[in-house]
Amino acid sequence: MEEIKIKTNNRIELIDIADKVNSILEKSKIKSGLCLIFCPHTTAGLTINENADPSVKSDIVDMFKRIIPTNTNYQHAEGNSDSHIKSSIFGSSLSIIIEDSQLQLGTWQGIYFCENDGPRQRQVWVKIISN
Amino acid sequence: MEEIKIKTNNRIELIDIADKVNSILEKSKIKSGLCLIFCPHTTAGLTINENADPSVKSDIVDMFKRIIPTNTNYQHAEGNSDSHIKSSIFGSSLSIIIEDSQLQLGTWQGIYFCENDGPRQRQVWVKIISN
Amino acid sequence: MEEIKIKTNNRIELIDIADKVNSILEKSKIKSGLCLIFCPHTTAGLTINENADPSVKSDIVDMFKRIIPTNTNYQHAEGNSDSHIKSSIFGSSLSIIIEDSQLQLGTWQGIYFCENDGPRQRQVWVKIISN
Repeated sequence: MEEIKIKTNNRIELIDIADKVNSILEKSKIKSGLCLIFCPHTTAGLTINENADPSVKSDIVDMFKRIIPTNTNYQHAEGNSDSHIKSSIFGSSLSIIIEDSQLQLGTWQGIYFCENDGPRQRQVWVKIISN
Repeated sequence: MEEIKIKTNNRIELIDIADKVNSILEKSKIKSGLCLIFCPHTTAGLTINENADPSVKSDIVDMFKRIIPTNTNYQHAEGNSDSHIKSSIFGSSLSIIIEDSQLQLGTWQGIYFCENDGPRQRQVWVKIISN
Repeated sequence: MEEIKIKTNNRIELIDIADKVNSILEKSKIKSGLCLIFCPHTTAGLTINENADPSVKSDIVDMFKRIIPTNTNYQHAEGNSDSHIKSSIFGSSLSIIIEDSQLQLGTWQGIYFCENDGPRQRQVWVKIISN
């Protein structure tokens, strides 16, 4: 597997890592299969969404903040229960089809690392399964 | 990979595509592996849930509408931020086990295309990875 | 594929099944690939989150209860619409990288079966795809 390093700059933000995933796929020379992207953190996740208008990202972030407030009657003492909950809602992995040596994404799709408890140095793991 | 075409009829609805996925698997002659179903749209998603009582579908749709209102202080100018957010919560792909040439689903499980900004002509991509 | 049996004890709870998944991987002798974990129930799901402080689990469960109340204007007559909705939010499968014959999880990550309508006897299916 390969590792992508990500430096996040805010407590909560979405960062498009599609270019980095594409670079890994290119080096692999795999023509057909599946690309598994995995987030090894429990206060961050992964999602696919629009990469054209940046306000889509901020609307997602804002709605997640509204649904899952940072401060409420949480028991976990580290003060980041909202980050754990958001991460379970986004999910910790993405699977994308590889065909003709290309990641098969829709026209408007970006691959987002969802930082829910930054800023931090993060990593994402990528495994390519050939078919 | 194979493509499934879907014509949606409402702004928000769940459409069972299990039969179409099964047809693709049948033609592939693959006996064992993984079926990856991918939604290339950013205002639609995929989920697995009950296919017996149709009120389960409508309860899911209604609760998503309640949690993520269509009209609130969104910044994205297209008026479909709720559709983007719902899509990230459902997720853009499903992975299902193939064994004995069959999709391994539970007794009550259907495979739903989650239209969050229809009606539209949509597509879903299916990739079968043999083991 | 292999089956994990799970006895749940509460209506809603998260149960760590990482040890059981690891046992299956060990027996498989697979060194590199992907581990697909699938939940065949429509009122239960799967998620990855922190396995150190048990209050993370209870905070997740409590927030899900708050966002998706058990009793509201649901149409589904079985009284467990909340369980179906929660299951679609958690998701029905997890994909984890296998490298060096090991499941590649982050330091704090556990693999949780999300019981949303227990207590019941449940099962989870595990398929290992070698690369």
